[in-house]
Amino acid sequence: MQHPENNDLYKGLKVNKGIADVPMINPYLKRVRRKELTVDDYVKGILDGNITLLSRAVTLIESQLASHQEMAQQIIEKCLPYSGNSMRIGITGVPGAGKSTSIDTLGMHIIKQGRKLAVLAIDPSSEVSGGSILGDKTRMEQLSREKNAFIRPSPSAGSLGGVARKTRETIVLCEAAGFDTIFVETVGVGQSETAVHSMVDFFLLIQLAGTGDELQGIKRGIMEMADGIIINKADGDNVQKAQLAASHYRNALRLFPKAESGWDPKVLCYSGYYGIGIKEIWDMLDAYRHHAIDSGYFTEKRLKQTKWWMKETIEDALRDSFYHNTDVMNLLPEIEDHVLNDRMTPFTAAAALIDKYFSWIRQNTNQG
Amino acid sequence: MQHPENNDLYKGLKVNKGIADVPMINPYLKRVRRKELTVDDYVKGILDGNITLLSRAVTLIESQLASHQEMAQQIIEKCLPYSGNSMRIGITGVPGAGKSTSIDTLGMHIIKQGRKLAVLAIDPSSEVSGGSILGDKTRMEQLSREKNAFIRPSPSAGSLGGVARKTRETIVLCEAAGFDTIFVETVGVGQSETAVHSMVDFFLLIQLAGTGDELQGIKRGIMEMADGIIINKADGDNVQKAQLAASHYRNALRLFPKAESGWDPKVLCYSGYYGIGIKEIWDMLDAYRHHAIDSGYFTEKRLKQTKWWMKETIEDALRDSFYHNTDVMNLLPEIEDHVLNDRMTPFTAAAALIDKYFSWIRQNTNQG
Repeated sequence: MQHPENNDLYKGLKVNKGIADVPMINPYLKRVRRKELTVDDYVKGILDGNITLLSRAVTLIESQLASHQEMAQQIIEKCLPYSGNSMRIGITGVPGAGKSTSIDTLGMHIIKQGRKLAVLAIDPSSEVSGGSILGDKTRMEQLSREKNAFIRPSPSAGSLGGVARKTRETIVLCEAAGFDTIFVETVGVGQSETAVHSMVDFFLLIQLAGTGDELQGIKRGIMEMADGIIINKADGDNVQKAQLAASHYRNALRLFPKAESGWDPKVLCYSGYYGIGIKEIWDMLDAYRHHAIDSGYFTEKRLKQTKWWMKETIEDALRDSFYHNTDVMNLLPEIEDHVLNDRMTPFTAAAALIDKYFSWIRQNTNQG
Repeated sequence: MQHPENNDLYKGLKVNKGIADVPMINPYLKRVRRKELTVDDYVKGILDGNITLLSRAVTLIESQLASHQEMAQQIIEKCLPYSGNSMRIGITGVPGAGKSTSIDTLGMHIIKQGRKLAVLAIDPSSEVSGGSILGDKTRMEQLSREKNAFIRPSPSAGSLGGVARKTRETIVLCEAAGFDTIFVETVGVGQSETAVHSMVDFFLLIQLAGTGDELQGIKRGIMEMADGIIINKADGDNVQKAQLAASHYRNALRLFPKAESGWDPKVLCYSGYYGIGIKEIWDMLDAYRHHAIDSGYFTEKRLKQTKWWMKETIEDALRDSFYHNTDVMNLLPEIEDHVLNDRMTPFTAAAALIDKYFSWIRQNTNQG
């Protein structure tokens, strides 16, 4: 990627400060002595399923150094033809719904099917999620000891767009390394659900039984995204409550218009802690995969998602260039004041700012 | 609004071909002989509640002539301080749900409260809606004879963004002319709901009883936008079915997260044709208005909407400039091919196009 000389004109795609070295929680991942590896070393290692090299390549993706970024992009590009052969599952639920335990238990079930599982996350700030995926080593106690599981926390800082991009690029590398099942975790209270929804094949919503009728703090619109709702803590005294909640959800989902996939979202009860109903969740995911592959929707959706990311990235760059333009920044407060006090419509205000922006570009590039 | 000289660089805000002269369906609106009116003539007329001048000003808004557009913008700007004093209601429902009859009956009830009602529409193409708001004069038989009703069809052609903008500008003029209740109608199957949702205070969804469990052809996501769902044709043998449907909707809405407004969406049964339950609908709208004004949400939402339109208009112009750029258009097919065949990530593809765009701008403005 070329960087234009004029930085005020074009800020480039946002790449945020990454983590130089993340702690390992899986004892199977041994530190190797750092030496300068070539792009081909990385690619070969990843295609061989070398987890250490996969992990180091992800660190390059997360780095903000231009040289790292360049290398990362080359690695990703060479891995692209080997990617795609997986089931990508987005998992959301508010803090307290039992996401970690559920991922741990469901993940173990998946690994026992002979599959390889990568668990990624998309929430950049631990303030929102109340603890990053890595913060607590015991969060995924069983998975973190499995050699067929690759758990990677979300980069600890950065814009949502930046983190989402890194997560999506990490998926490519994981798939090239042979991981055939990808979990992307998010907390379900922020802005990240659209981003997750746009990188997974199946969107799973975890809810709790027995905390009243309402979706517990989940954002509006998320329920309509869900391909499956699973109700946790359906154990002991809670079983009946969970089943009642499930029947409420089923009735509600029937009122929704048919999804584009032609798939009717399922509602299941389970217990992440006691491992009840886990097989049924995986069976549902598997049934969806067959359904979507048979109908051609699986590929169709992935192509749509790819186009979406391209469009989003372009618009992000255009917005960035506009809102960071000095003239626009100087004029904006005054214009906003006019608009909010009914002296200008939002349309004329927008036109005035757009004029300013393009005339700045004309003037400043004439001097260059 | 200034137009930059370089048209390839900046296409300006989309203004579509308007209708020079729309037929009148209200006998109270007498044609006056066309003479050249000044901006102040228009503004004075509108503030006096002169419907003929209001109507002609809306025609200026819809015109694609630059001179008309300039005049329209001046009129709107002068009317802005007198606008805002109304209840804006978005009404959606699939064709066949009985929107016209419902608007006619509810509108008459509203006028009998001493209010003045403007009925606007936002669906540009009659192919989608299956008949424009004006196509059938008998669609709003009672309202079209009322002098306190102003019915204005959607411009017959144009992009959604363009039509939405015109509708929103028309609201300003209607309010300045003393209309204190605004209906914005849409068909509920297209892309227009977000636009409508972003210009109204209350979003009303019309559904039919007795056609099965599912939302009849309504787009996903619309139900979560609704502040109220009203179930039509609750008359005769249909009453029980309607009540059953209402109770299903109520249960489903309880599962949704609380709306930002703090308002719990209501579900009502009525009959547009027999005029049953109409008072209750208006009472609901009125209750919402009081609720939102008391909580401060009414003003807060309108400010948010204004900002949203400004942002949308800016991004529309940026996108337009980008995607109409010759170099971008030439490169796009090749890049898309790379992306869809896994030779490039959507991110590097976007970066390549963005680089091309800004380097085109630098080169071409250097020659200017």
